[in-house]
Amino acid sequence: MADINDADGWTCPVPLRAETHIVLGHGGGGLLGSELVECLFLPAFGTAELAAAPRDSVVLEVGGVRLAFTTDSYVVNPLFFPGGCIGDLAVNGTINDLAMSGATPVALSAGFILEEGLDMAVLDRVARAMGAAAKNAKTRLVTGDTKVVERGHADGLYVNTSGIGLVAAGVHIGPERARPGDRVLVSGAIGEHGVAIMSVRSGIEFGTTIRSDSAPLGGLVAELLAAAPQIHALRDPTRGGLAASLCEIAAASRVGIVLDEAAVPVPEPVAAACGFLGLDPLHVANEGKLVAFVPDAQAEAALAALRAHRYGAGAAIVGTVTDGHPGVVVGRTPLGATRVIDRPLGEQLPRIC
Amino acid sequence: MADINDADGWTCPVPLRAETHIVLGHGGGGLLGSELVECLFLPAFGTAELAAAPRDSVVLEVGGVRLAFTTDSYVVNPLFFPGGCIGDLAVNGTINDLAMSGATPVALSAGFILEEGLDMAVLDRVARAMGAAAKNAKTRLVTGDTKVVERGHADGLYVNTSGIGLVAAGVHIGPERARPGDRVLVSGAIGEHGVAIMSVRSGIEFGTTIRSDSAPLGGLVAELLAAAPQIHALRDPTRGGLAASLCEIAAASRVGIVLDEAAVPVPEPVAAACGFLGLDPLHVANEGKLVAFVPDAQAEAALAALRAHRYGAGAAIVGTVTDGHPGVVVGRTPLGATRVIDRPLGEQLPRIC
Repeated sequence: MADINDADGWTCPVPLRAETHIVLGHGGGGLLGSELVECLFLPAFGTAELAAAPRDSVVLEVGGVRLAFTTDSYVVNPLFFPGGCIGDLAVNGTINDLAMSGATPVALSAGFILEEGLDMAVLDRVARAMGAAAKNAKTRLVTGDTKVVERGHADGLYVNTSGIGLVAAGVHIGPERARPGDRVLVSGAIGEHGVAIMSVRSGIEFGTTIRSDSAPLGGLVAELLAAAPQIHALRDPTRGGLAASLCEIAAASRVGIVLDEAAVPVPEPVAAACGFLGLDPLHVANEGKLVAFVPDAQAEAALAALRAHRYGAGAAIVGTVTDGHPGVVVGRTPLGATRVIDRPLGEQLPRIC
Repeated sequence: MADINDADGWTCPVPLRAETHIVLGHGGGGLLGSELVECLFLPAFGTAELAAAPRDSVVLEVGGVRLAFTTDSYVVNPLFFPGGCIGDLAVNGTINDLAMSGATPVALSAGFILEEGLDMAVLDRVARAMGAAAKNAKTRLVTGDTKVVERGHADGLYVNTSGIGLVAAGVHIGPERARPGDRVLVSGAIGEHGVAIMSVRSGIEFGTTIRSDSAPLGGLVAELLAAAPQIHALRDPTRGGLAASLCEIAAASRVGIVLDEAAVPVPEPVAAACGFLGLDPLHVANEGKLVAFVPDAQAEAALAALRAHRYGAGAAIVGTVTDGHPGVVVGRTPLGATRVIDRPLGEQLPRIC
């Protein structure tokens, strides 16, 4: 493994290179996952697009057309949870990755890895959820593949969705484009997806059933772009939560972010569950929310556009970009104190998506 | 499961609907896999592109550009085998699916599912093989994703590659386009990939080491198109082998195919291994071959173009399309007898790719 550290001039943010085997945290939204990309996949693939700041989808110029392209594999456990299942999660997740580049989804693929012995009714339910989710988001599943592995070599099913989308002329959104003075918006309550999965998995009830927020955000982004054409950056805060998204954008844009923690919408049951489990809601995954970096002059219009949409009703302005402390996200707590907000190292919660 | 059989007017070619659980054969290139698509995925997804004849990649008109799009998950066991590994297999396989629509590959994605505890050196070797294969085929891996599952919930790693390609104006290739009078060409020796995997897995040596034929066919298809612009159909005979490809095209085009079995290039060690194991080489998977349906007038030019290319040196004309026995493939044996060539039901050999 010595030679995977040869990427010219690049240095790991944390010296974890001694890791000789894959750990669960490599699949999280934290530093371990980034290290795997930067130390292993980048040198192996040698692709400029991958070497750029991490983004939800890549934008390519193909035959004069601007295409967004993205892929995600889904291994969520359990397959069904309050608010959704692996099927709609996989469709919505890939649509959202396209939407975060400002792209209108055009078509999706579905690649299944099935475990021998899987109940056909389970697969049918998952496939129907995928078809319904695609229809709901006005897109289509146009190509697919099925592999089967022996009993014990998967658990139930895994699914990969890849997607292509069209990016309109003039739309330039990227994690490296946030600028001092930008306002930071989130489109609604955070933490619901992670807590929903956790509550099913742990068997712990938190008084009320918390449902995953899984939703397709293509339409929301279209409305947002109409109201605030100068959006600088968009991110869907999935693995690693809002904290990871903010830290990635702060690093990619070399700006500081001040987060007004009191303004972040955290539903009471999510706060209670996180308190009980010792988690920070900022680190918990979402599957139907976005964070937007918008020039101050368009922030109110952007907020109104988000709030007018069914998937953005709970939107709020939660922070500001500064030229102080580049690369660092600082939270102002309700009591007026400040703290540095970090990305998690690995994952608090494996198999969240 | 009752309602998955409601696809309007469609009837399964074989009444296997009583299957209530996934079996290994659903992942093969045979009838069980087709049934899964037709009885379950089609009604669930409701997509016209999927309902069309099965094809290696779908062609979409996007913003005035003709794009091919495809996906494949790879679960080959073992990860490394003579002639390649899961990494180059995944890159070449997706490039080939694009090439079978006449597309020039533009970009690929890579979605990994890793097992906790996987040796980082193994992942590194696979990723480097992917990077090298992409470079060899003049394409790029531009986006990716990594998930990790707990020990015992995968074996080593699975990888999905999806791809997009550009289809030139005037190129119209599809499994439903074969016409009576077309000549059938294969680009070289068949059966090598399947026998290579089988020999590693069974520990059986067949005198000489048979290597997988894994190779990217984009360049070969470009040469073929230049020599024979009227190619009607192309297929890479992977799971299910040459027999499955021929049967699918015969069915989709509603034509008969007469295969001159003596003309099919089967290397001696492949024939010996198949004889020993009771397999028909026509059913064994290939990963670097194509079968082409070309109008008679262009067949010799097509053959010459194939033979001039490093990946087509062993090309041969192996059959003819007829308007007799539509949907049926008939083999003429070296002794002058004829037999019906069928698709396998499931898979002789699971986890071949």
